[in-house]
Amino acid sequence: MAEGAQGTRRLRGAIVVTGSEVLAGRVTDKNGPWVSQQFAAYGVETAGIIQVGDRRDDLLKALAQASDWGVDLVATTGGLGPTADDLTIEVVAEYAGRTLTLDPELESRVWAIVQKILERYPDIDVESLRATTRKQAMQPLGAVPLEPVGTAPGSLVPPAEGRGDGPLVIVLPGPPRELQPMWRAAVGLEPLAGLLAQAAPFEERMLRLIGLPESDLAAALEEIEGGGVALDRLEITTCMRSGEIEIVTRYEPGDAPVYDELDAAIRERYGARLYSDDGAGVDEVVRRQLIEHGWTIGLAESCTGGLVASKLIEPAGASAYVRGGIVAYDNEVKVSALGVPAELIEEHGAVSEAVAIAMAQGAVERLGANCGVSTTGVAGPDGGTDEKPVGLVWVAAVVPGREPVARSLIIPGSRNAIRERAVTFALHTLRTAVEPD
Amino acid sequence: MAEGAQGTRRLRGAIVVTGSEVLAGRVTDKNGPWVSQQFAAYGVETAGIIQVGDRRDDLLKALAQASDWGVDLVATTGGLGPTADDLTIEVVAEYAGRTLTLDPELESRVWAIVQKILERYPDIDVESLRATTRKQAMQPLGAVPLEPVGTAPGSLVPPAEGRGDGPLVIVLPGPPRELQPMWRAAVGLEPLAGLLAQAAPFEERMLRLIGLPESDLAAALEEIEGGGVALDRLEITTCMRSGEIEIVTRYEPGDAPVYDELDAAIRERYGARLYSDDGAGVDEVVRRQLIEHGWTIGLAESCTGGLVASKLIEPAGASAYVRGGIVAYDNEVKVSALGVPAELIEEHGAVSEAVAIAMAQGAVERLGANCGVSTTGVAGPDGGTDEKPVGLVWVAAVVPGREPVARSLIIPGSRNAIRERAVTFALHTLRTAVEPD
Repeated sequence: MAEGAQGTRRLRGAIVVTGSEVLAGRVTDKNGPWVSQQFAAYGVETAGIIQVGDRRDDLLKALAQASDWGVDLVATTGGLGPTADDLTIEVVAEYAGRTLTLDPELESRVWAIVQKILERYPDIDVESLRATTRKQAMQPLGAVPLEPVGTAPGSLVPPAEGRGDGPLVIVLPGPPRELQPMWRAAVGLEPLAGLLAQAAPFEERMLRLIGLPESDLAAALEEIEGGGVALDRLEITTCMRSGEIEIVTRYEPGDAPVYDELDAAIRERYGARLYSDDGAGVDEVVRRQLIEHGWTIGLAESCTGGLVASKLIEPAGASAYVRGGIVAYDNEVKVSALGVPAELIEEHGAVSEAVAIAMAQGAVERLGANCGVSTTGVAGPDGGTDEKPVGLVWVAAVVPGREPVARSLIIPGSRNAIRERAVTFALHTLRTAVEPD
Repeated sequence: MAEGAQGTRRLRGAIVVTGSEVLAGRVTDKNGPWVSQQFAAYGVETAGIIQVGDRRDDLLKALAQASDWGVDLVATTGGLGPTADDLTIEVVAEYAGRTLTLDPELESRVWAIVQKILERYPDIDVESLRATTRKQAMQPLGAVPLEPVGTAPGSLVPPAEGRGDGPLVIVLPGPPRELQPMWRAAVGLEPLAGLLAQAAPFEERMLRLIGLPESDLAAALEEIEGGGVALDRLEITTCMRSGEIEIVTRYEPGDAPVYDELDAAIRERYGARLYSDDGAGVDEVVRRQLIEHGWTIGLAESCTGGLVASKLIEPAGASAYVRGGIVAYDNEVKVSALGVPAELIEEHGAVSEAVAIAMAQGAVERLGANCGVSTTGVAGPDGGTDEKPVGLVWVAAVVPGREPVARSLIIPGSRNAIRERAVTFALHTLRTAVEPD
């Protein structure tokens, strides 16, 4: 743990996500990433995230493993439910060396909540609810209970006396809508509040680039370092996905001048290929462009099947700039709902420059929008030809006062990978149509 | 490790996912779940998944932690790229006690691939590409290289002589479209092929239920066990999400009769609330219904913004039953593109039974479909009223030969949680409209 300014220090945390459904790959875990972001917001560096099934021994080992990273706190998520495979609180108690005991006051508070469920399910067995309430009101002796948001309480569990400087364990429930408010309450409670107050903050910046290979960036970073910028003061990670490169840099506040040198060198080298410097993705950049111009948008989607629309509608307040969209999966719908001339499809095929442009224009006209974006592609796995292979995607963007812009790309990978990257590709095409590089 | 039939045994595996972008919660990891499903397909039980950043010490500890679960194999994903934060192969070599050395033949094969990149980026620095190629052709001495799918080779790394029975490490790249083909090649290569041949297979079954609380199921399972069904022979996990309960049961083939008893007891107790017994989600159940009836569908989405359409278009062959959809986010679009009478919106509000039904009917008419499904809701975080709070969602389904069905629900949680659960709710409404319980 590095020494920071004014008695602060670099705090580290780990996250243990329980649940066989996550481990088996049936459910995507959302809690690990969310808690990690919360850690970062409080200046806690996440050492690692462990996903483990609902097996007693594996979970106990996961807790020991998490502390092995040298962490100050461990958050657990899930395993607080009423069924027999919900083991977290008892395993955490064992790990921390504390006896599990019934908290009678907590039990009566949980029971008050549970009775509301009874109203919704009148045929339920009251005795079984009594038993599960008792199970959920068990707490490690000496721990600080966290009030339930659903029916499951959480807990702040310090190591038992004589267990040295083991981590504080923050026991949180699995459903995100319970976990998130409970975390927000927990950060104000001791001993977590006092621990977080010791954290030394760090800075984090993100640059997003498009249109270069990762190896080129690797060489650039070496050159920049060779040119005298002390990159060893910065923690730089690069990540390539959906055709974009993200450069994330973390550093202590005192190293801001070093970061500024890096930032300037990247800008000089890559110019307009650097399209975002504040963490905004292309969807957010496009959103800002639309709001700035006071424009609305309509979507015409084939292969992406509504994903572009749902991406743009994700943030609150989307009604200011999204009119709507037409998912024209069937060619007849491209004709009837978007007004694409049937001859155009016959002559060029549905996956073509001409049809992409006609779709985007149709979205503008039929939805009464200022701008239109379209996608049409061969998402596979079947339906590819030599001329139009699986992965070929045409996108088009129409914006006021400019010629329509259409671009194509052959995207490798699965049907889903093709669909997802086509969304990004369409949004970049709109972005550069609004502000040509 | 349990002894199985005919010299097989219960194999266990762990997965180490590297990448600061995953750890920081910026990127959703897809490799851990995918590899876990592959493990299961080969009869390997996943003990845990560890996500760790691109830090040398943390990664080395993660490998040690993974083996601490008592595993036979460890798969690593990511960290094989050209930049300095790509450390996996050298850390795995250290962990396995093997020297990292340049494989000259591998280098020339990688170089042949890299030269194609040169054609796409003519202004690239050739020397830097030479250097990164050399980095990517480093292998632990005695390991079996896995041929690159992109530019990064993987590796099968057995523990060094004298290191006892440590796990075999399977080093895989980060991009899913590289990882997946490489894994498929690796399972045919020694020593992985021989190891997998020893695995004792196990059975896995999934039941999905809707319309009951998890505590009721907990009580039901206890009762079933009390009634003499040997549930201790089965590994049962239950998971509540999006208003559904999943019961996943794993067992050794010899315990199939026990599972059959459990299955029968659940059916008897829950009847039509059990809606899937083969792992199919409601989207898949609806897909089968549409194909069985030879019906097509059109979507009319407001708060879900295209998510229902994109869900139904996800599988290949969707053109047989999806005509398309209209994302009518703006009320004017509900009127113009779906033909919802403006007076209806004025009288009842956009989030209402009447408008939901009119939207679904509009989707049928405007898209030329047999069935229509609509969603309209208050996704928040603003815009709620006492009468129509944030989370209120109305959905409707129209199917041939039946009265339209409309249902409402108040969904708790964030904007995204509301949108996602509204998708499931709409699909269940369609399902029960096609086949009333």
